[in-house]
Amino acid sequence: MEVDLAGADALLLVGDSERSADLLYTTGFRAPDPYVFLWTRQERLVMVSDLELDRARAQARVDRVLASSHYEAGLRQRGVSEPGSEQVLIAVLSELGLRRVRVPADFPLGMAEALRRAGVSVEVAPAPLFPARQCKDEDEIAAIEQALRAAEAAMAAAVEMIRRAEPWDGNLWLDGVQLTSERVRRTIHRELLEWDCSATGTIVAGGDQGCDPHQEGHGPLRAGESIIIDIFPRSQTSGYFGDLTRTVVWGPAAPPLRRLFETVRQGQELALARIQDGAVGRQVHQAVVDLFSAAGYQTGERDGHMEGFFHGTGHGLGLEIHEAPRIGSRGTPLSSGQVVTVEPGLYYPGVGGVRLEDVVVVRPGGCQNLTRCPLVLEL
Amino acid sequence: MEVDLAGADALLLVGDSERSADLLYTTGFRAPDPYVFLWTRQERLVMVSDLELDRARAQARVDRVLASSHYEAGLRQRGVSEPGSEQVLIAVLSELGLRRVRVPADFPLGMAEALRRAGVSVEVAPAPLFPARQCKDEDEIAAIEQALRAAEAAMAAAVEMIRRAEPWDGNLWLDGVQLTSERVRRTIHRELLEWDCSATGTIVAGGDQGCDPHQEGHGPLRAGESIIIDIFPRSQTSGYFGDLTRTVVWGPAAPPLRRLFETVRQGQELALARIQDGAVGRQVHQAVVDLFSAAGYQTGERDGHMEGFFHGTGHGLGLEIHEAPRIGSRGTPLSSGQVVTVEPGLYYPGVGGVRLEDVVVVRPGGCQNLTRCPLVLEL
Repeated sequence: MEVDLAGADALLLVGDSERSADLLYTTGFRAPDPYVFLWTRQERLVMVSDLELDRARAQARVDRVLASSHYEAGLRQRGVSEPGSEQVLIAVLSELGLRRVRVPADFPLGMAEALRRAGVSVEVAPAPLFPARQCKDEDEIAAIEQALRAAEAAMAAAVEMIRRAEPWDGNLWLDGVQLTSERVRRTIHRELLEWDCSATGTIVAGGDQGCDPHQEGHGPLRAGESIIIDIFPRSQTSGYFGDLTRTVVWGPAAPPLRRLFETVRQGQELALARIQDGAVGRQVHQAVVDLFSAAGYQTGERDGHMEGFFHGTGHGLGLEIHEAPRIGSRGTPLSSGQVVTVEPGLYYPGVGGVRLEDVVVVRPGGCQNLTRCPLVLEL
Repeated sequence: MEVDLAGADALLLVGDSERSADLLYTTGFRAPDPYVFLWTRQERLVMVSDLELDRARAQARVDRVLASSHYEAGLRQRGVSEPGSEQVLIAVLSELGLRRVRVPADFPLGMAEALRRAGVSVEVAPAPLFPARQCKDEDEIAAIEQALRAAEAAMAAAVEMIRRAEPWDGNLWLDGVQLTSERVRRTIHRELLEWDCSATGTIVAGGDQGCDPHQEGHGPLRAGESIIIDIFPRSQTSGYFGDLTRTVVWGPAAPPLRRLFETVRQGQELALARIQDGAVGRQVHQAVVDLFSAAGYQTGERDGHMEGFFHGTGHGLGLEIHEAPRIGSRGTPLSSGQVVTVEPGLYYPGVGGVRLEDVVVVRPGGCQNLTRCPLVLEL
């Protein structure tokens, strides 16, 4: 890995690896509490609490591990009774002779101002901080595939549950108990556990609930209505995400819903055909928008609710569930090795919601679909 | 809720509610993607993407919900082909006539500098941003208790699994298969699902693995060794955390391990007896440190590893797993309504690791222990 210091003495990151994907990417060290990472002209180092010392020494991809307690003790000797994390950081920078640091755009303002007051120059590095993070190597792609396999196994369990249900008075029943979004979601999460993946925000949304794309879904599922299932697990071992969406219906779907599904499928095929090294994300998205619009599906607000296609076609996937690049109204050119989702959707209250999502690797001249899950509407 | 604007026109928060507990606390609106919150002298409002519009209108505790797409469209009309989130924010502030904003210390530096370049004054609000967040009301305490009940149910399942195991050649076996940290952890996570809680970082660490307090634990569990089980689930409905740690041994524990357990138990009792409105966190912690030290348990580095008691006695618990106040080398006075963990530990490679953790509410003259889980070493 390389870093462009552009005249600064060091790159400085502060955070915990669960929230800062850049930190996890560059150090490989997972810690629930904030730690400091410095990349100087000579070395890469982390500073951690005593609690993390042994693990950091074993796991962090750095040249040196510093103990924050050492600097806290030094400050106490100099009369600072309660050294704060900013004072400790200033002490380390001073000891290492680092007077000018580059930080990521999401560096905390409060800490930047404390450093500046202590005479340290702090400048924001241009995004992306680690351009290489967008292009996944084979190990990273394998990690994403593993999380995707987990999502597929969970999807299969969810779909099987709905397939096995029977309708009564319009609602679905399984083993004598009503089938609800919550019950299907629990089955999904149970399956993900077997794959050492965790998931939050899993969507099982029936009928009009599915027309709000971030609605998780609750209550009874019904025969004949669209059910959107969106599963995005994170591997607890690798930290990488998978992402998968399917839309199913118990029994025959009404013709307008079948047509909605077929149009979204065509939109996804179109995007998959366009995605390749050099393709511009915004143009891929626009092609899908145009296809939907030509099929007569308008997007906009009606009766105070959005309907149509009002989210992006896709997003980068990796150590974050949503990361660069975007394939939407703001998408830039795609590059080989980027892993992106392809997930057009159409939502019309009264008809239903449909979203279909695969994960692909951008390659020269095309893309490689990592997803192995069938596309079936009617169960 | 009230806010101190101290001369500014508005308080400004930008983030997603999964990472920003302050945002979730003040708006009650859960969204996986970043959104903007503004608290002016007249009103409270959020600005969200079209994707979140309906949900924000239904769920956010604000006076008004703005659509970022409206401002993006306006910028495009004025010739900005790819309006970024910073430009959109500047457009909103300008429309609302907000020229001076207060932000939390963790506000992103890059965004602060973009605002300043646009002539907006940005100042860091003193921490804590919402002092009331530290003191939980009855609903919040009930939410924490619910997550704690989940942790207790998962602990009971884990302990029962170890109790039912049988030793063979020193290792533990259950139903003909070796009992491992991974297997016990999976049982814990399965139980937490039934409570609609998620958990990451769950610790099931046997023997010397448990001497590294953040080591999650892996591989076979053995008879006679200490097994630290630390479970900290987050409720998927309320967003609040529970936190619970117990240490168990299959079969009789060696006398040095029994003494270690007994000393940690005494340390916990001492802290529980000291915690009350007005008690100083640092002093509570020091009392535990002194008790351990008087019992002959020294803390420091030996053979390149930390041993003894090298973490805090406790931390605040709420919408974050670790939040203010601290009960450690940096603890401040405690106040009624704060919910804190009490979790001393002692770690000596070769002997074992012991940590015992309860959750309490600080009250006048004492504390109320919310934990209902037995303290038993030998199974």
